[in-house]
Parts: sequence; C-alpha cells; structure tokens
Amino acid sequence: MKFTKMHGIGNDYIYVNCFEETVEDPSGLAKRLSDRHTGIGSDGLVLIRPSETADFRMDMFNSDGSQAQMCGNAIRCVGKYVYDHGLTKETTITIDTLAGVKTLWLTVENGKVTAARVNMGKPEFAPEKIPVAAEGEKVVDYPVMLSGKEYRITCVSMGNPHAVLFVDDVDALNLEVLGPRFEHHPLFPERINTEFVKVLDRGRLRMRVWERGAGETMACGTGACASLAAAYVNGLSDYKAELLLNGGSLFIEWDEESGCIFMTGPAETVFTGEVEL
Amino acid sequence: MKFTKMHGIGNDYIYVNCFEETVEDPSGLAKRLSDRHTGIGSDGLVLIRPSETADFRMDMFNSDGSQAQMCGNAIRCVGKYVYDHGLTKETTITIDTLAGVKTLWLTVENGKVTAARVNMGKPEFAPEKIPVAAEGEKVVDYPVMLSGKEYRITCVSMGNPHAVLFVDDVDALNLEVLGPRFEHHPLFPERINTEFVKVLDRGRLRMRVWERGAGETMACGTGACASLAAAYVNGLSDYKAELLLNGGSLFIEWDEESGCIFMTGPAETVFTGEVEL
Repeated sequence: MKFTKMHGIGNDYIYVNCFEETVEDPSGLAKRLSDRHTGIGSDGLVLIRPSETADFRMDMFNSDGSQAQMCGNAIRCVGKYVYDHGLTKETTITIDTLAGVKTLWLTVENGKVTAARVNMGKPEFAPEKIPVAAEGEKVVDYPVMLSGKEYRITCVSMGNPHAVLFVDDVDALNLEVLGPRFEHHPLFPERINTEFVKVLDRGRLRMRVWERGAGETMACGTGACASLAAAYVNGLSDYKAELLLNGGSLFIEWDEESGCIFMTGPAETVFTGEVEL
Repeated sequence: MKFTKMHGIGNDYIYVNCFEETVEDPSGLAKRLSDRHTGIGSDGLVLIRPSETADFRMDMFNSDGSQAQMCGNAIRCVGKYVYDHGLTKETTITIDTLAGVKTLWLTVENGKVTAARVNMGKPEFAPEKIPVAAEGEKVVDYPVMLSGKEYRITCVSMGNPHAVLFVDDVDALNLEVLGPRFEHHPLFPERINTEFVKVLDRGRLRMRVWERGAGETMACGTGACASLAAAYVNGLSDYKAELLLNGGSLFIEWDEESGCIFMTGPAETVFTGEVEL
C-alpha cells in the first residue's frame, strides 16, 4: 500500500489516496501502522476518498484504532494532498467529514500548498451540548475544585468537548498529573479535552493541551479554536489571535457575522512510502 | 533520498543504501529524520556502505546526531538488507563497524532473511576497561549505595559499558527514577547502560534496560549479552539463555571455546520510502 506521511504543526498522520488504494479494516491497520517502533509511526490513519456531497471525503482513525470525527491539523494536510497530487486544481475545496462538510482555502506557493484556512464551525457553549454536568446557559469562568485547589474553567464544544483554563505559567504545569484529573472529573460525562492557556497579549495565546484518550499532544486544532473562543468571552483577547502550541502556531479568527471560527495553519509532507500489508 | 525502515525487536532505524545514495551531513540528517512527529521517526540512521576490510560497512548515527559504534539489533537488519536487496548471495557475511568487523550468519526463509546470528565479541570484566572506578579484577556482585539503599551490580563491557542488577520484580521498577541514578553515579566515568534482570529460570532471563543518553528502550543487544555474561559469572544461568526484552526475545550464547558471545534475533522490514532532503 502506498502512503504519504504528513503533519500539521507536529500532529502527524499516514495519508492514503483511496482513489488508487483499497483499505480493508482501516481500524486495525491504523493501530498496527501507528506504532512508532514497529510500524510507520503516526497519530493515526487518514483515508482520502471520493464524496457525493463534497469535493473529497476524509475518514480518520486514531492510533488506538478508534474512528475520529475530524481533526483541524489533518484536514489541512488533506487539502495539501489533493492539490499537490493534482486531484483538484481549485484552491477553495470542500471536504466531507464525520463532523460535516468543511470548506478549505488553500495557500499555494510554487505550485504546492503550504497552508490552509479551514472553517471550523460555530463554538457551542450550551452545557448539555458539550456535555458538561452544570446548570445555566454557559459554563464561563466556572469554579472546579481539584485536590483542594480551585481552578476556573470555560467550556466550549467545537464538535468535541473542551474545558479551557487561563493560567500564569503554562510551561511549568505538570500536565501528566493535572490533565487526567480534568479528563475524568464527574462534571464531564464524555470526558474532556483540557486547554491550559497563558494570555501573552490580546493577540497571542500560549496553549498546551491534554487530549482525552491521548494525553499531552503537540497540537490540537479544535482546542486552539475553543481557547480563542474562551479567551474572547472572558474578555482576555480580541476576536482573533495567534495560538502558540507545542508544535507551532495556528491563527484563529472568530468571524462575528457568520459566528464561525476560522483556523489557518501550515501543512507539510514528510515522505512517501510503501508498506506490505 | 530512498530509505528502508527496519527494526530488530522494536529497535528501529532508517537504513540507507549508500551504494546508490550519497548522504551529506549524516549526523544532522539523523537528528532531523529521527523526529517521530515531523520526521520519519527512528532511533537513528544507519548507512550501508562498501568496505575494504569486510563485505560491507555500517555507519550509525543516533537520534541525537551522535555517532554510534555498533548496535546488535541494527547489524541484524543490515544483514537482512544486503541479502534481501541482492547485494550479496552469501548467508555468512562480515560487516565492518566502529567496534570492529563482525560476522553474521543469516537465517533465510522463502528467499528473505528472518533472523541473524552475530558474533558480539568477548565480554570484558576488567574495571579500567569498562570503565568502572573500582579496584580488583572484576566488579561482580558489587555493592552500590543509592539513596540509602544497597544494590549489587556486575559490570561488563561489550564494547560499551554495562552494569547488571538481578532483581525480584523487574516489571515493577521505576526506571525513570532508578536509571539516571546509575547512569550518573561517580563509579562510571563514561556513564553506564544499566540492565535490570529477573532470572525466570537458568535458561530464561527477563531484562529491562536504561541506556545512557536514551532512557528506557525496547531492546539493547549488547545489554542482553552483558546480562547473560553477568548471570553466568554469578552462577544464576547456563552459558546460554533466552533474554526477554520489552520488544521481544534474543537468544544469547557464550561460547566457551572462543570466549565470544553470540546473539541470535529477528530482523524485520517495515516499509520503504523516499524523502526530499
């Protein structure tokens, strides 16, 4: 099976062109090929497929074999893949995902895509839709007690659930300890992705993320969107900002008119390969 | 640059055929390509080259860019590479390394190498040659105090320095804490690789390893040889044993006649690829 290894600010997947390849048991394959010592090594497997409702379709499987709905870093790479491989000549394309059809605007330099802008949809604050086991219209600057210490969280869904905390020294935090305490807190019936954010200024936010089921990762696109939305509703940032993640920067903009959040970031091809299955 | 990703019980390297490829700055390349998110991902880079003194030569670079002398898991993969790619038709071959010329015996099934036996040389017990800052002819069952607790070590060089400890419950040990304490102990002027071994029976040893500069790894071929030698001189095993490492099993045999230790283990190809440099 031929494949291409790509990453978006360190979030790396194995991309397979299913216009040419047939993949049986993608869940089992994702698990096997994602092993970083005995496999190709990745955060998961992304299948690029024809779609009846959009220009392309992406199906994603995490490294544990579970199916993923959507990933902001992966979809930018899909945009780069289809353009760089001549599957489209358009720079505005639509991609069908399990979280709905997403529109991408591709930045092309010397005939290759270097970055993409993605409409990540509208942030959802209603606690029952995130879900968060709390009353009220929104969970903003909401106190949570953990091991005798109070933390204040803002909860947002970007199709997946996020709790955002604003902290003074984000790089000193021990996420290995703190992350699981949020992830498994009874407030979150479907667990939670937690973003720890330091406001550098109104246009720059340093963010670390603890992803449910994955631990600390180099980048989380929906987490960056959730963090900007949380910073804005808490009056800590403008409606757009640069998010500095472990793996690099994403530019997040909350468009007032449409209510949608747009994410712009890089997409990179690392190598192409062929594996015997 | 074309490459092949291979592993020996989880110890994975990027292999480049330098009969066809030219590699400039292998140290920098090893560092960049070994990154498991933005690169190919590996424990390092292995260059397969022509040799004037042996059938082939291997040059190794660790993931931090430093040059490695030799690796028992990597050299088996070199054996598989040169046979499977038709660079030799012999099943007994010699490979020049920075630790001297090594002889390999290849196991071939259906035209492909599945395993290799390697002469890993003679174990060295003289403390000044390991080096260990201790008196006497050998450092065997030697007491070391760490944080108020006594450990007993046996020191062996297999071209690189090893301290071997026999413990009752090897899988319960916290190597993240214990490993660095041995690695940086003043007994070891060039630091040390530490093997933690549980004797299952006289022919089976369960081993975990803390490699200097790398931390706990899935497998260490010289460490397995050092562990068998240490077990034998302490009267805990026969002259040959199966070593059960995190990544799989190695069969180690100390040949009385020659004094050399022979290691037998698998070699696997994961995928082939091409990367733009």
